[in-house]
Amino acid sequence: MASKARVNIGVIGTGRIGKLHAGHIASRVSGAALVAVADINLAAAQATAAQFHVPVAVADYRGLLDDPAIDAVVIASATDTHAEIAQQTAAAGKHIFCEKPIDFDLRRIDATLAAVQKAGVKFQVGFNRRFDPNFRRVREMAAAGKLGAPHLLRITSRDPAPPPLEYVKVSGGIFLDMTIHDFDMARYLMGGEVTEVYAAGAVLVDPAIGEAGDLDTAVTTLRFDTGAIGTIDNSRRAVYGYDQRVEVFGPGGVVAVSNNTPDTHVYSDAEGVHSARPLYFFLERYTESYIAELQAFVACLRDDTPPPVTGLDGRIPVVMGLAAQKSYRENRPVRLDEIKA
Amino acid sequence: MASKARVNIGVIGTGRIGKLHAGHIASRVSGAALVAVADINLAAAQATAAQFHVPVAVADYRGLLDDPAIDAVVIASATDTHAEIAQQTAAAGKHIFCEKPIDFDLRRIDATLAAVQKAGVKFQVGFNRRFDPNFRRVREMAAAGKLGAPHLLRITSRDPAPPPLEYVKVSGGIFLDMTIHDFDMARYLMGGEVTEVYAAGAVLVDPAIGEAGDLDTAVTTLRFDTGAIGTIDNSRRAVYGYDQRVEVFGPGGVVAVSNNTPDTHVYSDAEGVHSARPLYFFLERYTESYIAELQAFVACLRDDTPPPVTGLDGRIPVVMGLAAQKSYRENRPVRLDEIKA
Amino acid sequence: MASKARVNIGVIGTGRIGKLHAGHIASRVSGAALVAVADINLAAAQATAAQFHVPVAVADYRGLLDDPAIDAVVIASATDTHAEIAQQTAAAGKHIFCEKPIDFDLRRIDATLAAVQKAGVKFQVGFNRRFDPNFRRVREMAAAGKLGAPHLLRITSRDPAPPPLEYVKVSGGIFLDMTIHDFDMARYLMGGEVTEVYAAGAVLVDPAIGEAGDLDTAVTTLRFDTGAIGTIDNSRRAVYGYDQRVEVFGPGGVVAVSNNTPDTHVYSDAEGVHSARPLYFFLERYTESYIAELQAFVACLRDDTPPPVTGLDGRIPVVMGLAAQKSYRENRPVRLDEIKA
Amino acid sequence: MASKARVNIGVIGTGRIGKLHAGHIASRVSGAALVAVADINLAAAQATAAQFHVPVAVADYRGLLDDPAIDAVVIASATDTHAEIAQQTAAAGKHIFCEKPIDFDLRRIDATLAAVQKAGVKFQVGFNRRFDPNFRRVREMAAAGKLGAPHLLRITSRDPAPPPLEYVKVSGGIFLDMTIHDFDMARYLMGGEVTEVYAAGAVLVDPAIGEAGDLDTAVTTLRFDTGAIGTIDNSRRAVYGYDQRVEVFGPGGVVAVSNNTPDTHVYSDAEGVHSARPLYFFLERYTESYIAELQAFVACLRDDTPPPVTGLDGRIPVVMGLAAQKSYRENRPVRLDEIKA
Repeated sequence: MASKARVNIGVIGTGRIGKLHAGHIASRVSGAALVAVADINLAAAQATAAQFHVPVAVADYRGLLDDPAIDAVVIASATDTHAEIAQQTAAAGKHIFCEKPIDFDLRRIDATLAAVQKAGVKFQVGFNRRFDPNFRRVREMAAAGKLGAPHLLRITSRDPAPPPLEYVKVSGGIFLDMTIHDFDMARYLMGGEVTEVYAAGAVLVDPAIGEAGDLDTAVTTLRFDTGAIGTIDNSRRAVYGYDQRVEVFGPGGVVAVSNNTPDTHVYSDAEGVHSARPLYFFLERYTESYIAELQAFVACLRDDTPPPVTGLDGRIPVVMGLAAQKSYRENRPVRLDEIKA
Repeated sequence: MASKARVNIGVIGTGRIGKLHAGHIASRVSGAALVAVADINLAAAQATAAQFHVPVAVADYRGLLDDPAIDAVVIASATDTHAEIAQQTAAAGKHIFCEKPIDFDLRRIDATLAAVQKAGVKFQVGFNRRFDPNFRRVREMAAAGKLGAPHLLRITSRDPAPPPLEYVKVSGGIFLDMTIHDFDMARYLMGGEVTEVYAAGAVLVDPAIGEAGDLDTAVTTLRFDTGAIGTIDNSRRAVYGYDQRVEVFGPGGVVAVSNNTPDTHVYSDAEGVHSARPLYFFLERYTESYIAELQAFVACLRDDTPPPVTGLDGRIPVVMGLAAQKSYRENRPVRLDEIKA
Repeated sequence: MASKARVNIGVIGTGRIGKLHAGHIASRVSGAALVAVADINLAAAQATAAQFHVPVAVADYRGLLDDPAIDAVVIASATDTHAEIAQQTAAAGKHIFCEKPIDFDLRRIDATLAAVQKAGVKFQVGFNRRFDPNFRRVREMAAAGKLGAPHLLRITSRDPAPPPLEYVKVSGGIFLDMTIHDFDMARYLMGGEVTEVYAAGAVLVDPAIGEAGDLDTAVTTLRFDTGAIGTIDNSRRAVYGYDQRVEVFGPGGVVAVSNNTPDTHVYSDAEGVHSARPLYFFLERYTESYIAELQAFVACLRDDTPPPVTGLDGRIPVVMGLAAQKSYRENRPVRLDEIKA
Repeated sequence: MASKARVNIGVIGTGRIGKLHAGHIASRVSGAALVAVADINLAAAQATAAQFHVPVAVADYRGLLDDPAIDAVVIASATDTHAEIAQQTAAAGKHIFCEKPIDFDLRRIDATLAAVQKAGVKFQVGFNRRFDPNFRRVREMAAAGKLGAPHLLRITSRDPAPPPLEYVKVSGGIFLDMTIHDFDMARYLMGGEVTEVYAAGAVLVDPAIGEAGDLDTAVTTLRFDTGAIGTIDNSRRAVYGYDQRVEVFGPGGVVAVSNNTPDTHVYSDAEGVHSARPLYFFLERYTESYIAELQAFVACLRDDTPPPVTGLDGRIPVVMGLAAQKSYRENRPVRLDEIKA
């Protein structure tokens, strides 16, 4: 790749996140070109293609895999199609950027990672929050030893509003759909592996979520191989907006990051002192990190370096999610090595 | 009491906390007078008496119980003497302000509460943090319905430095010595009862603490009867000072309080933006709340109202601490009703 | 004085500020005793005496000057009586703590300072804000060279509500009544002298203040002998409470202090993020600094050291105030050396 | 214009700011295309053209004015060429986005505005800070009446480092080069006109700036036609980075905005509590506002609405700058109506 002037990318799946990636590749990611889009809903593919002036729009993603002009694909289709598409893409010799989660099933994940390895293509998983300046700064300070070996991790991760019930039903559940980002963040920030989880959950936001078999509130305790302890608290509805904070504490100090806001205004009146709410949701909050993760993907293709988020990085949070599910069901701490493919 | 101009108080135990209370009664608590002090170390009692111009200093606290001029006593002696002294004080018909914990043994606690009830005296437990303006504000906002029925509670409670090892050995362990304040805070803020705890602990600060049979780092998950979930994280050593924060989250919003600092300065230089560390430890941080709890005690005597922190409020955090100990030992969630007197 | 166990203090004038000082001396200032109070309104003197258990209450302050048991007096009477009382007190050989301003007339100030010098008594002026931890921290950082030689000073000083019109009429005007504190703060923080002022003023809060011949809004530019430039902005009414901030900027960095609040709560709801207003007014905001200035006064008597706020420190802000008045009237910068006694 | 799919823009001047605009038009401003660049240094024009894949690069800007495919030009050449180029552009019937200042000479400004009016083209001045979310929020809150009629305005505007001396010499001086942005901001935020200014200045950062006939530190007091008073403090060197804060105070409250930072991290260690410095300088701080001002320019062309920053908005801050210069030289307040074209 290093000799190529430009990486040609196709996007598979033009739902919300696929369209987002398509737009970024088209105009914000340097050294890349959006050359094709695919969606089983052809009209959706065509609309996205029109919006970003892309010549190729197809219903069958295999059209992209057959196209020699395409260097890499972004897989942003429904989760249950990731594994199969990724395996075929690998077989076609094209590099892969795959949205999280790779799959809910460890065997299918392992088959995917094996296919990738066999084909020798690059495979990056879409844990975009690793590319956020706040979290990156925490990671850098931890990695630089400013905290010493961490003792405690706290993650607060709350959505402004629950997804539609139809989505909840196929989401894999809160731990695999929502907490999975925090599981990845925990590994990223702590530079260590989780050995055991204990998950407490509740349905407090909306009974319909419980009726759909899911939780909307959860607190997960993480035990790390270093002895450190972490907690993640999740809610599907924070009325004040998207709440995305982390804190890492160690013998050298503590570093915390708070929410981003649209502006820094502080207004004081007879009632109190008032400032802006956090940015509403992930599209507003993580815009730049979505661009940065694709920029990093393009860089690893051009420089032939390992992707910054590997297939294993995609697998482990799924194991953590499965362990959290089991912990919640059995109301006991569950070791990660209890979860087998 | 209502007709009395002044409440005469004796202090039993003139260690650090007893001396603190003595000084406050002598000069900062209105409507009260410090009239006697007792300490098994007579010289210590005499020194405190001299410092605060108190006429009576004795080695045997029973001297105070026999003194008809004394209306109430503050019990600030060693924890294992609280129950016996309290029972004798009740029998002597004097009101009691008892430092936390009442005892580590539930049967002795229950005997004490029974003695108090039989005697008809007032009994207040020294959970001073309830009188801190920060936590009080959280409680008031929660009680006023600004959050809705709470979903999540987060307490961060970290000491600047571990106590001496000699103290650690007789402290009852981190859950009964340190987390007990946070257990009380959890009940105070949430207005509900905890039904189950899960405690993860570690020795990360100082191996000697582990050798003494204790932990120095702990994360406790609380399940409330309302369905809400809480976490408490503790460390015995935060290099940046005493870290005392809470956050309550509900459907109506979230309220959080941060640390108090000696001043509000913000200094920006070529390296960054710098501000003051939190106040060092509980003596600096909670000065005013120690005064306020005694003022409230005096008020309940003068107005013949119930004490703001009752004997039951003193008992329940001990149950929570015993459950946390058991949870840590057995690495499983423990219901509070598993803990029997 | 150094040999005395206790400094006996009488308070002259038992209005709001005199009563405040009396209470502090009675119970919060160590090494001092409140032994007498005087007020031309005898009933007021007696009420204050009763409140603080003081044996002596007189209408004529000369009763205090004749009392050999009294070491020092606090002069908190009406401003136009300060000079005469201070001169008589000095003649009686007693030390003086004098509320600001010493007087509005420079000749009377100079006569007072001469009398003090002749008598060899201590004389401290009540610029209490110098004893506030925030401002003290700024001063210490500036003095320690953390900023380099300062270039810019910004002071924001706004009251929550204007004083009664009756007070406005005898107050000496906004520059001598309100800004005078900021003039002192400017000298204290910058460690240099002001050579010229330019005052812009307006009546924007209440036309009645303008009808009484005063301003309610003012911005004063200060030129320092070091070349540094400062600004002070004042308003008689900030609906959000007492606004007391300063900022000093130099080649090494900038240090700023913000307002103090009753608690640290931050509440986020669907409307925004909300926190506490500043403490309401000077009694709430500067409680501790009023105690600290008297403690420092007692210390300088006991240790025979110079008072921390001298007579000259009391004189110069009056010169600045007179220059600001002249600047406003003539709408031009006025040098301090234009103001003659 | 409303019927056109795309606004074709040429950029004249490819120095730092011209290149910035060129890049934004090429990829970040929707509905616009960068079709040509001009620079008297042809190589510079060609380099910019190559970077952004622009077909046309010329040395003589008149090449752009003759090109019928070009709808509008961005004038980002040296300040002393703005007026002439703008007048020729207007004569050529093309719309104009002109960097600030239009000119230092009021007669040339007036000739330019007359030419624009005669030609009936749109003319927008590059006061980009009006498009910053922070300042925009302050303006919106003021305009919405949240503050009442403003009483006080405070602007802090400090650069991280002085420009090169060669630039200083042709910059027009601090008031016309640096404070001019703050003069515009004052009008924008207060919704009123300034009638008089008083400027205090100093050379405290670098004597060489003084030797070049300029100041590096300045405090300007503004009197508004509403009676409100404002101050602007400027420094050419803040070691902690670009300091861009404003505050508007009125009877209804106060609103302030603080600096933007690269991340929200807060690090506490044994020394204190530390966070990120402000973004370094205007390129980092105002990136989005540079895009937004061009987006607004394109919108006013497409919708045929008035530009959001008019020629008069470009003229008045120059008058203010000239008045500030005169005020500094004569050390007296100067009314704006003293400044004649």
